[in-house]
Amino acid sequence: MKNFDLSLYLVTDRALSLGRPLEFIVEEAVKGGVTMVQLREKDCSSLEFYKLGMKLKKILNPLNIPLIINDRLDIALAVDADGLHIGQSDLPWQVARQLLGSDKILGLSVETQQQAEDANHLDVDYIGVSPVFATPTKTDTFQPFGLDGLKRACRVCKHPAVAIGGINLNNAASIIQHGAEGVALVSAISSAEDPANAARELKLEIQKNIR
Amino acid sequence: MKNFDLSLYLVTDRALSLGRPLEFIVEEAVKGGVTMVQLREKDCSSLEFYKLGMKLKKILNPLNIPLIINDRLDIALAVDADGLHIGQSDLPWQVARQLLGSDKILGLSVETQQQAEDANHLDVDYIGVSPVFATPTKTDTFQPFGLDGLKRACRVCKHPAVAIGGINLNNAASIIQHGAEGVALVSAISSAEDPANAARELKLEIQKNIR
Repeated sequence: MKNFDLSLYLVTDRALSLGRPLEFIVEEAVKGGVTMVQLREKDCSSLEFYKLGMKLKKILNPLNIPLIINDRLDIALAVDADGLHIGQSDLPWQVARQLLGSDKILGLSVETQQQAEDANHLDVDYIGVSPVFATPTKTDTFQPFGLDGLKRACRVCKHPAVAIGGINLNNAASIIQHGAEGVALVSAISSAEDPANAARELKLEIQKNIR
Repeated sequence: MKNFDLSLYLVTDRALSLGRPLEFIVEEAVKGGVTMVQLREKDCSSLEFYKLGMKLKKILNPLNIPLIINDRLDIALAVDADGLHIGQSDLPWQVARQLLGSDKILGLSVETQQQAEDANHLDVDYIGVSPVFATPTKTDTFQPFGLDGLKRACRVCKHPAVAIGGINLNNAASIIQHGAEGVALVSAISSAEDPANAARELKLEIQKNIR
């Protein structure tokens, strides 16, 4: 059984980190109770991506917090990350699963109810319901699910779900109340003045609402 | 012994293909005698890159023309390409070699004489001397080697060398005369009105000069 906790899932974005190094954000976030970290990089060299991955692994591995790589299976393999998160425009899940191995965590973003349902037939470990709310972080996404849509997606899909998109301290509780096992956050932690405290407050809010 | 022929090496660039599909360029180029093809994509999704790789593999595999993937080890693994070409900002060669396996072709771009010399200690199968001439195709490159620099790099490095950057029908012969085993071309084939004929003319020019 793979051991992972989706409840407070940090997705990195260096552009939203207010100029602070990624290692700082991640170190602070884990102090605050982040349970998983996804390294997402869209515009850097493979070497830089690899080096960032190695740095985060060094921070997270001793704490048993899974490091998940976004999109780039080669980086996930190269740093021996705990898993890979793919979207609908990334490698086909079968290819990713085969190369990644069955012991690694494979997450898949779903952007429609149909995709949430289709995921039942796929050998993935969790789904990312994306976006749950409108968000300026990602620009190429579908209509937001909204809370009702999230609830439906969580009901229809057998895999645990984490919601992403526009989540903050004010709406994190409602995400859990509507069936998600966790919240994935970018700016609510990365852009916070005190990322550790931001994570801590979110964690409390989530724990109060987990059944 | 890995079997590959660097003599006429097409490096793809969809932006320089005058709106024609990549498959067309590659099919025409192989008619003209291209001996190797490198799929280079910098701004597309992983899914699109994978699909392009699969298409090119279908064309090249029956002809025994190696398909090499630029930078993206995951795509190389996913399409089971014949090899990977990495630059100095891509994955470290040791990591690439380990994940790729010893039976695949691994090429490395060198941008300085020092890198050409250092490559002697690396388990790579060929080097790409880049750029040999100034070129508008790549903007982030070092000082061109020039023909004398190419000659020195070929002498100092034990691996076979292919030259890239600003090569066309007028200077292809001189590349071979200065010690390279082949020419790597982007626009001289992809932007030609008749890519098959462009490849054919280059091939003749190269064959006349191979010792």
